[in-house]
Amino acid sequence: MPRFTRKLSKTVKFSSPANMAAENINAPGKITVIDYDEATVREKTVASVEECFPFKNTATVTWINVDGGGRTEAIEKLGQYFNVHPLVMEGIAGAGQRPKFEDFEDYLFLVLKMLGYDEAQSEIREEQVSIIIGKNFVMSFQGEQDGDVFDSLRERIRTGKGRLRKLGADYLGYALVDAIVDHYFLILEKFGEHIETIEEQLIVNPGPAIMQKIYHLKRELIFLRKSVWPLREVISGLERCESGIIKKTTRTYLRDVYAHTIQVIDTIETFRDMVSGMLDLYLSSISNKMNEIMKVLTTFASIFIPLTFMAGVYGMNFKYMPELEWRWGYYAVLAAMVFVGGGLFFYFKKRKWL
Amino acid sequence: MPRFTRKLSKTVKFSSPANMAAENINAPGKITVIDYDEATVREKTVASVEECFPFKNTATVTWINVDGGGRTEAIEKLGQYFNVHPLVMEGIAGAGQRPKFEDFEDYLFLVLKMLGYDEAQSEIREEQVSIIIGKNFVMSFQGEQDGDVFDSLRERIRTGKGRLRKLGADYLGYALVDAIVDHYFLILEKFGEHIETIEEQLIVNPGPAIMQKIYHLKRELIFLRKSVWPLREVISGLERCESGIIKKTTRTYLRDVYAHTIQVIDTIETFRDMVSGMLDLYLSSISNKMNEIMKVLTTFASIFIPLTFMAGVYGMNFKYMPELEWRWGYYAVLAAMVFVGGGLFFYFKKRKWL
Amino acid sequence: MPRFTRKLSKTVKFSSPANMAAENINAPGKITVIDYDEATVREKTVASVEECFPFKNTATVTWINVDGGGRTEAIEKLGQYFNVHPLVMEGIAGAGQRPKFEDFEDYLFLVLKMLGYDEAQSEIREEQVSIIIGKNFVMSFQGEQDGDVFDSLRERIRTGKGRLRKLGADYLGYALVDAIVDHYFLILEKFGEHIETIEEQLIVNPGPAIMQKIYHLKRELIFLRKSVWPLREVISGLERCESGIIKKTTRTYLRDVYAHTIQVIDTIETFRDMVSGMLDLYLSSISNKMNEIMKVLTTFASIFIPLTFMAGVYGMNFKYMPELEWRWGYYAVLAAMVFVGGGLFFYFKKRKWL
Amino acid sequence: MPRFTRKLSKTVKFSSPANMAAENINAPGKITVIDYDEATVREKTVASVEECFPFKNTATVTWINVDGGGRTEAIEKLGQYFNVHPLVMEGIAGAGQRPKFEDFEDYLFLVLKMLGYDEAQSEIREEQVSIIIGKNFVMSFQGEQDGDVFDSLRERIRTGKGRLRKLGADYLGYALVDAIVDHYFLILEKFGEHIETIEEQLIVNPGPAIMQKIYHLKRELIFLRKSVWPLREVISGLERCESGIIKKTTRTYLRDVYAHTIQVIDTIETFRDMVSGMLDLYLSSISNKMNEIMKVLTTFASIFIPLTFMAGVYGMNFKYMPELEWRWGYYAVLAAMVFVGGGLFFYFKKRKWL
Amino acid sequence: MPRFTRKLSKTVKFSSPANMAAENINAPGKITVIDYDEATVREKTVASVEECFPFKNTATVTWINVDGGGRTEAIEKLGQYFNVHPLVMEGIAGAGQRPKFEDFEDYLFLVLKMLGYDEAQSEIREEQVSIIIGKNFVMSFQGEQDGDVFDSLRERIRTGKGRLRKLGADYLGYALVDAIVDHYFLILEKFGEHIETIEEQLIVNPGPAIMQKIYHLKRELIFLRKSVWPLREVISGLERCESGIIKKTTRTYLRDVYAHTIQVIDTIETFRDMVSGMLDLYLSSISNKMNEIMKVLTTFASIFIPLTFMAGVYGMNFKYMPELEWRWGYYAVLAAMVFVGGGLFFYFKKRKWL
Repeated sequence: MPRFTRKLSKTVKFSSPANMAAENINAPGKITVIDYDEATVREKTVASVEECFPFKNTATVTWINVDGGGRTEAIEKLGQYFNVHPLVMEGIAGAGQRPKFEDFEDYLFLVLKMLGYDEAQSEIREEQVSIIIGKNFVMSFQGEQDGDVFDSLRERIRTGKGRLRKLGADYLGYALVDAIVDHYFLILEKFGEHIETIEEQLIVNPGPAIMQKIYHLKRELIFLRKSVWPLREVISGLERCESGIIKKTTRTYLRDVYAHTIQVIDTIETFRDMVSGMLDLYLSSISNKMNEIMKVLTTFASIFIPLTFMAGVYGMNFKYMPELEWRWGYYAVLAAMVFVGGGLFFYFKKRKWL
Repeated sequence: MPRFTRKLSKTVKFSSPANMAAENINAPGKITVIDYDEATVREKTVASVEECFPFKNTATVTWINVDGGGRTEAIEKLGQYFNVHPLVMEGIAGAGQRPKFEDFEDYLFLVLKMLGYDEAQSEIREEQVSIIIGKNFVMSFQGEQDGDVFDSLRERIRTGKGRLRKLGADYLGYALVDAIVDHYFLILEKFGEHIETIEEQLIVNPGPAIMQKIYHLKRELIFLRKSVWPLREVISGLERCESGIIKKTTRTYLRDVYAHTIQVIDTIETFRDMVSGMLDLYLSSISNKMNEIMKVLTTFASIFIPLTFMAGVYGMNFKYMPELEWRWGYYAVLAAMVFVGGGLFFYFKKRKWL
Repeated sequence: MPRFTRKLSKTVKFSSPANMAAENINAPGKITVIDYDEATVREKTVASVEECFPFKNTATVTWINVDGGGRTEAIEKLGQYFNVHPLVMEGIAGAGQRPKFEDFEDYLFLVLKMLGYDEAQSEIREEQVSIIIGKNFVMSFQGEQDGDVFDSLRERIRTGKGRLRKLGADYLGYALVDAIVDHYFLILEKFGEHIETIEEQLIVNPGPAIMQKIYHLKRELIFLRKSVWPLREVISGLERCESGIIKKTTRTYLRDVYAHTIQVIDTIETFRDMVSGMLDLYLSSISNKMNEIMKVLTTFASIFIPLTFMAGVYGMNFKYMPELEWRWGYYAVLAAMVFVGGGLFFYFKKRKWL
Repeated sequence: MPRFTRKLSKTVKFSSPANMAAENINAPGKITVIDYDEATVREKTVASVEECFPFKNTATVTWINVDGGGRTEAIEKLGQYFNVHPLVMEGIAGAGQRPKFEDFEDYLFLVLKMLGYDEAQSEIREEQVSIIIGKNFVMSFQGEQDGDVFDSLRERIRTGKGRLRKLGADYLGYALVDAIVDHYFLILEKFGEHIETIEEQLIVNPGPAIMQKIYHLKRELIFLRKSVWPLREVISGLERCESGIIKKTTRTYLRDVYAHTIQVIDTIETFRDMVSGMLDLYLSSISNKMNEIMKVLTTFASIFIPLTFMAGVYGMNFKYMPELEWRWGYYAVLAAMVFVGGGLFFYFKKRKWL
Repeated sequence: MPRFTRKLSKTVKFSSPANMAAENINAPGKITVIDYDEATVREKTVASVEECFPFKNTATVTWINVDGGGRTEAIEKLGQYFNVHPLVMEGIAGAGQRPKFEDFEDYLFLVLKMLGYDEAQSEIREEQVSIIIGKNFVMSFQGEQDGDVFDSLRERIRTGKGRLRKLGADYLGYALVDAIVDHYFLILEKFGEHIETIEEQLIVNPGPAIMQKIYHLKRELIFLRKSVWPLREVISGLERCESGIIKKTTRTYLRDVYAHTIQVIDTIETFRDMVSGMLDLYLSSISNKMNEIMKVLTTFASIFIPLTFMAGVYGMNFKYMPELEWRWGYYAVLAAMVFVGGGLFFYFKKRKWL
């Protein structure tokens, strides 16, 4: 039962001024700054947002990553200093945003969902990631889960392998989005394996417990779909936006990540089709199995009913029942019973009722 | 049963000249005026519409709110004085309008649905809110329910906190729409909790009463969807309209409320998918439970039928039935019965029919 | 059964030259002419179409209404005199046209469906109305049903109340369309009440007869939908057409009637969703009710089967059956029977099978 | 069973160079030429394609019709002489083309499906018709079925009635398309009648045979839909093409045939909805009927089971069973049996189980 | 069961930098080069990619085909030399790409799926084919399956038959795509035959095994659809791309292959509709068959139950049962039994329960 406890309310939460106050837990969050150009990399964990301010007007690319931040004043200050619209900062703080893309001329604002897969519960979890891409900086805001999705990216910056260090903030923005979308494939692969396991169980031994598993799959897919579908327009918006922030070379990469997104969506739709096919198969298996049992039992009973009737006839107490006096009457009746019973049995067998 | 009494006709009513006369109950309605600029606020409840006229050409922003108004002449007069098209005033008076947006150059006309949730009946109620946004005034027309959705807005005007007092009539218009859409999330959250409660009941104990609850959920969702879907184009129309009334700064906010609307619609679709999944689960649970019972009972009967036949055989009155004379015949038969009955029992057990 | 006799062929009929000849019943039709401007109204029923010709080039607005016309030569003559394209006149004469709008520069051509509701059969009937809107004239062609939908319009022209007399032929055209669309709401209201009646029956007492009623509802909705859906593009076409015939003031009104059309379509879709929900509820109710009965009866039988077996055992004729000789044997067995029967009864009760 | 033998492969066949060779049965085909202008008509059946060549540059309109042609060299020669793209000639020869429209500047190329209805098999048959519309000529290529759809057209050319002779090759092209689409209505009318017949059977006596009929209907509709849906874009493409071949006057007529096409598609969709409704009705009828029977039989059995038990009790052989000695014991038991049986009967009757 | 072992994960695999390393099996692949113009053809299998480099700037058309290549350095070198974007080379190496088209100005990049049909498993297999079309060269990259789909193309180049040798690299690119799409028809034809076989089995003898076959069909169709749907936009993109690489003459051919693609998609949709119809038919057949059996058996039992009761009555041991003493009592009861049994039999027969 606990597997059904995903709180719906989670999917409904939102971030209007009205109910924001309640969530305002002023958690400080962990802020890391990576500042690089082709030649140098500087990386540090800062204690206060003010330490980020000097990076605003440098020529290098600056990546400010905030982990597990509620709507602290610190974040608001950060936004103000970098001239980010207050609505954006509100959106970052509120957890229940729908994936979206907005072009504010000076910077681009993206909300994405990072997915995680809890194998014990076979449940997909989501976490909001907000990304602001400016001329020479990128800010990313994550929830409280460990953001290991970006770790390989950090490694690539540190080592300077690949194109990352050579290209600007827009390419870093792309790299963040790409890391998130690539991670979806991992989740889908795990989820796909889970579907397969259930499908095998379904074919080998379709019991009633499997129905709840299928229902659970369906529910996770509804949830997954809701998280991923909007991504399509988000990334297509990012690719097509006329802002000068995204350079032409980066657009080619964005087209690639867009193709991946479509593939993710396709796969989810395929999963949905498959799960709905499994439901049909389950219902028909159950009904077949039940029918099989009922058929055998009913046929079985139908053979004994006439025999019991025959026994009943010779159990009557009439004074004048000549058969009762016959020497071989009993055996004759037993023989008749075997004959009738056997006849019915073979008749039912022949008509494939048994 | 009362939960099904939502009158369909309610969803069909309309406001053509033909049947308008009938509803013309000339209810006076309560009219409040709030007039403000960055420095000052004036607020009063007026007795006659004529008292609103002086506000027409002031530089301040004027918000005229009419509660519970039928199609009184007073309202018509108000419209005439502010040069509002007669069709708009008709639309305001008629209760069954579909959410819509129209741009009349001098002013914008919006029809929205304000939702309420009657927890006792688990029923969603709707009320029409019409909003006219002019250069320096906003008029809002509500039904008879208490319009507490706007109360926090009034408070914000009074205290002057936030941007509201600094920006014009278009921002006030946005704020009204935002208040209504934000309220939807509250309704959805409550409705989502209701769905969850029923889902839990469904998993723990799926009785026939739950079917009616699921049907009720489905019906409420049909109703909800009908109220909310048109909102998408209404708000997108408002955001994109080329009228000079909406200033550029406000458009950013409208884009935000548009994103909220999409989220509301997404959530409703998710609810629909979930309720339809619940229906599948219910039907399969019921059929499983029934099958379980039938299987046990039928198997049970099938064990006794051969035994009864055996008893019947030795109840026959044939003169020559050697077994009847045997010293241990009775016990032998009883033993045979235990053996046959037990054998069948274990056979059925092994084939998982019991 | 008569409720299913709606002839499908009706929905398939068409007006190609090939099969037109057959329907050419040369019915004369009743022709009325109303000619008005702001100051004067003239109204007459004409015997021959030639009497309409003088109105062609007057400055006043002329409304020529033809009731119950087949494809008479008279109508063709009328078309020729007013320079109407022969295809249009063919379309008017043929009864099975799909709602459509065409812009012929000099005039606009509309085909609409007027609906009627036959309460005895709970059946929706349709009738084709063709409207030609010219610079200073409007022609309308109806079927043989009484065109009382236009009666209130005639009254408004006669009395000169409202805007009708002040505005041109395009407004008259709008008024005709509006009268037809407004009438749809009436039909939908009646149909909605019918759905509600059946829904109440369904909840109170779901018998097999209700299935046919639901099927009937579904069929009527398929029919209704087919009649109304095309209206959307018809009226949107009319509103957006670049012809000079539709003046700007009238466009506002057309936008209003377009909003009504969308509302009609929404309502039909809502009805469809509701009827499909009713079908689910019906099927589940029937199956629940059946299961309830089968469960009780099977349980009932299952209690008596072991008891009958016990009676059978003591009906055996073995010579040596000590129990039979016991003084209280009979009563002991009766007591055992009560015990077993009662035990099973309470067991089944506890497991909620009874 | 033969009704299910429609070869699927038929719907999959295609005309790639690879498998074309196999079908190249070099059937000569029957070629007829009709050459006309407003004043004169010449009509002849030609033996070789070369006889058609002189018509290429005449001022008159030439209609070359080829019946039952495989991919003969003759046809290829014809194409070459009239400067038709080789791909077009390949398309004409291959039988499994999808309806399509292509504009080759000098001429227009159309592929349509002509439908036929085999009433014995209640099966819809299709045949490919390819039409090439040039400046002053039209070529049509049909399959082997009798092309009587065009016969009335030929008659209209011969007699010179109507507009056909006065207008150019584009109008002739329209007339061919119109003849084909008009013929669809005939097919739909017949098919609609067939649906009605089955619907009546379904309501009067829903036996298992009807399921296969409904399945057959569904299959024919899938087939029909596949043939007709692409028509929409074909004819809309023809109407909107910017080629100078289609004159403005003809466009009005094409708009009309487009409206007919939409109507055909609407009707097919309506049929689909209806057939799917019939399936629901059938399944529910069958299950109702079955339930009715099971209910009566089970109730029936349930009445006799307690009675048999009572008889069993007094069939026991206990020595001390006082009732057996009573003078009126037998009658008392019979009375009790009537009482119990009757009581159960009325109880079941009251609960509407019988 | 093995037929369900298609690994889902296969459909989820992808080619992100992260998991690419794992697949990097550095398989050398077989590289063949065909270089031709209208006059000459040169064909060779090369050992190292460097041998392909001289063909870069020739005036002839060069087709480089790589079979069974993993992401070898060799391929990367090839890409670098021909100025292909690194992302493209990554896409070629990763196996799980979605069909796509991208225009890189200097060359066009296509990913397609080549399908194969494993008749033993009735399973459709797919293999990725990547095609790069440059000004004067075409590169194709296939998986490890035998690429016999291109064999006839090679033959056509060698013999110089047809247009292939006369036209440029763009036509060769078209020819490759055409070969792949034409091959789909073959697959569909085989799959269609498989559907037909199962349909026949379904109608003749619908056993439970068929449900798994239908489920398998459904699953293959989900898979097929996922492979083929994206083709539509791929080929439409190719046809409409504004790149100078595709010449006008080739566009005509691409339009043709586009029409084929639509036909392939149509056919898949038709198959889906058919398989879903088969599911309905199967479920209804199974339930009909079951009902038939249950009806007969229950009726059968219902006839014997009253007879057994009668026998039970005369098996009672009352002292005073006058019938038992009657001379013809036994025969009278037997006659009554025949009468009751026969009466019930004919009654059930008449009500069509037997």
